[in-house]
Amino acid sequence: MPEHIPADSVGIISPKVQRFDEPLTLRSGRILESYELIYETYGELNADASNAILICHALSGDHHAAGYHSMEDKRPGWWDSCIGPGKSIDTNKFFVVSLNNLGGCSGSTGPTSINPETGKAYGPDFPIVAVRDWVRSQKRLADFLKIQQWAAVIGGSLGGMQVLRWSIQYPERLRHALVIASAPKLSAQNIAFNEVARQAISKDPDFHNGRYMDHGVVPKAGLSQARMLGHLTYMSGDAMKEKFGRDLKADELSFSFSPEFQVESYLHYQGQKFSTQFDANTYMLMTKALDYFDPTVDHDGDLVKCLSQAQCKFFVVSFTTDWRFAPDRSEEIVNALIQADKDVSYACIASENGHDAFLLPIPRYLDVFGAYMERVEGDIPACTKSTSIGTTEGELS
Amino acid sequence: MPEHIPADSVGIISPKVQRFDEPLTLRSGRILESYELIYETYGELNADASNAILICHALSGDHHAAGYHSMEDKRPGWWDSCIGPGKSIDTNKFFVVSLNNLGGCSGSTGPTSINPETGKAYGPDFPIVAVRDWVRSQKRLADFLKIQQWAAVIGGSLGGMQVLRWSIQYPERLRHALVIASAPKLSAQNIAFNEVARQAISKDPDFHNGRYMDHGVVPKAGLSQARMLGHLTYMSGDAMKEKFGRDLKADELSFSFSPEFQVESYLHYQGQKFSTQFDANTYMLMTKALDYFDPTVDHDGDLVKCLSQAQCKFFVVSFTTDWRFAPDRSEEIVNALIQADKDVSYACIASENGHDAFLLPIPRYLDVFGAYMERVEGDIPACTKSTSIGTTEGELS
Repeated sequence: MPEHIPADSVGIISPKVQRFDEPLTLRSGRILESYELIYETYGELNADASNAILICHALSGDHHAAGYHSMEDKRPGWWDSCIGPGKSIDTNKFFVVSLNNLGGCSGSTGPTSINPETGKAYGPDFPIVAVRDWVRSQKRLADFLKIQQWAAVIGGSLGGMQVLRWSIQYPERLRHALVIASAPKLSAQNIAFNEVARQAISKDPDFHNGRYMDHGVVPKAGLSQARMLGHLTYMSGDAMKEKFGRDLKADELSFSFSPEFQVESYLHYQGQKFSTQFDANTYMLMTKALDYFDPTVDHDGDLVKCLSQAQCKFFVVSFTTDWRFAPDRSEEIVNALIQADKDVSYACIASENGHDAFLLPIPRYLDVFGAYMERVEGDIPACTKSTSIGTTEGELS
Repeated sequence: MPEHIPADSVGIISPKVQRFDEPLTLRSGRILESYELIYETYGELNADASNAILICHALSGDHHAAGYHSMEDKRPGWWDSCIGPGKSIDTNKFFVVSLNNLGGCSGSTGPTSINPETGKAYGPDFPIVAVRDWVRSQKRLADFLKIQQWAAVIGGSLGGMQVLRWSIQYPERLRHALVIASAPKLSAQNIAFNEVARQAISKDPDFHNGRYMDHGVVPKAGLSQARMLGHLTYMSGDAMKEKFGRDLKADELSFSFSPEFQVESYLHYQGQKFSTQFDANTYMLMTKALDYFDPTVDHDGDLVKCLSQAQCKFFVVSFTTDWRFAPDRSEEIVNALIQADKDVSYACIASENGHDAFLLPIPRYLDVFGAYMERVEGDIPACTKSTSIGTTEGELS
């Protein structure tokens, strides 16, 4: 737990839950009659609601991006290094909204929520959601919050895909798109890793075709394996060498199949921890959303044509040792934006931390991110109203 | 099946089995009282047994490296592209020996063999074997075959590790060491991939702690997942993009968790095929041999000091897109050999095929391999005996 809240923290935060009763027709054709979204906000919305930032989370992320839920919390939100007073996403200047996506397991409607048709948890009956479905649900949240145009929509990895989708789905609803450690669509190798992870989960005898809640169990072993594989591929080979090398747990080899090397123990720990915190059906759904994402499907596979619809400015960031979403994938986006005659800035940050780098406080990353955010601030239109429209944090809850 | 045997094939081959009754003390301290090795030979041993080549296999390889076992065989041995009359390893010139390693599941003593102490299959009681144990058992096979000095010992991947071990363990017993797509030891990332694969197997409910034979089952799902992961990492991202891209199996997405992309189907097919052909306990053992391999452990972690013991000449080969055993791992070996003042040639072959490249008929690879083998041939000492010592293939069986 924090002994005290750091001065550059957004402090103690209470999530809010909003229910939406307008049916949402999903990309799959299935319909969610109603749903709830859980979200947090940091900072204050200005009088004409022009300083709002939307944060889109990645595979295992949630709405809790910054600050603490209580003084008992051991750690702050997942992007606390970037969000707070004086940080890259400066909550003294911006009103930041961070939600848990549909299909998630942290409070928004998902497989662990009650299906009104059955009175039981959805489990595997929860529909597969696509990135465009998330963006539609996020747009409804923006409408509810009376945010007509985001100052910026920001996300890393799968979050970056939501940002790209925002830029073409609701082009007039954002001024800046910040796409970090992402890709215009998954590669065959990316899809293959996801499928191996899904196999690990679905072949766990405790998975029960996704109906594990009915059996009072959780497919821990499968979820743990999926996380081990994911975690391993989010690190760079060099970072693993630096962190673990070939160090052993004990003084000598045991010549057994129990974990003997430090790197094995570390991954087991990460896998087991995750398997008690995350929902397996949600993991399955999130990886499918990744696989399906391809905004060019409606544009003859042409990324330039696809991105031509965008009206916002772009900032794209990649990391040198990220091999899941390598710099050349970000550069595909950058090149298409240039060809589409869009305003784009790009930074490839030197880092040894692989894909994980986008979550880490790497000085040059924070610097260029912060510098771009000054540009986002500069693009906030001069206030046209003289009084607050009553959308401070407290009143929104 | 082959309609006819190609002219450059070694033809129809019958494996031979040799029993060894001298106990073998393993690196783990455990003792194999006796064991059998299955092997094949191609070509003819010359009069003074100076033209013999040893082939060391990789993780899932076996003794059947070239030719066919019958006219019903659908495919030749695993390295048929390199071994045969007129091929890189020319059986008109060399006598080639290829064995299945201890712990294997293709005929040499391993987990599926009968444990004389119990009268039942060893299963998980088969001791964990190390690369040095394999090399000792291979040396005994050389003694039995009356091969005092190999013209060359050759292997790729885990096979290359056996070659490195030969060069320092029995330095006077080989003239050339050909180390292909290998590494001086696994990286933390390599070990992590192996551990995830082992977890997939050991957490399969049909694994039964390795005693699946007692239960009349096979941990197919786990073995299949392990193979999917392995296969995926042996390919390069570019090769997967070229071969599969984001092509779908059907015309449209099904929005389900069954395989939808071609790359998923392909990996499922590879995994399922492997899971009916390979023994899970052997897979566990082979990955451990990989993890443990580090010839520098007896030399203060110093690869130069370690390789200083070698007396043979070296040929090291890597492939540009191999990211499991990347070129810089081969170059660690090359650099250490140069510092140790050894005779070493090195080729890094341009290929899109990742780690798999070492098994493929890539023209430049076959060319430089063949050119080096001419050097191996040139180093065969002039024959000192006038008559055959009776070690043609037929008489050895």
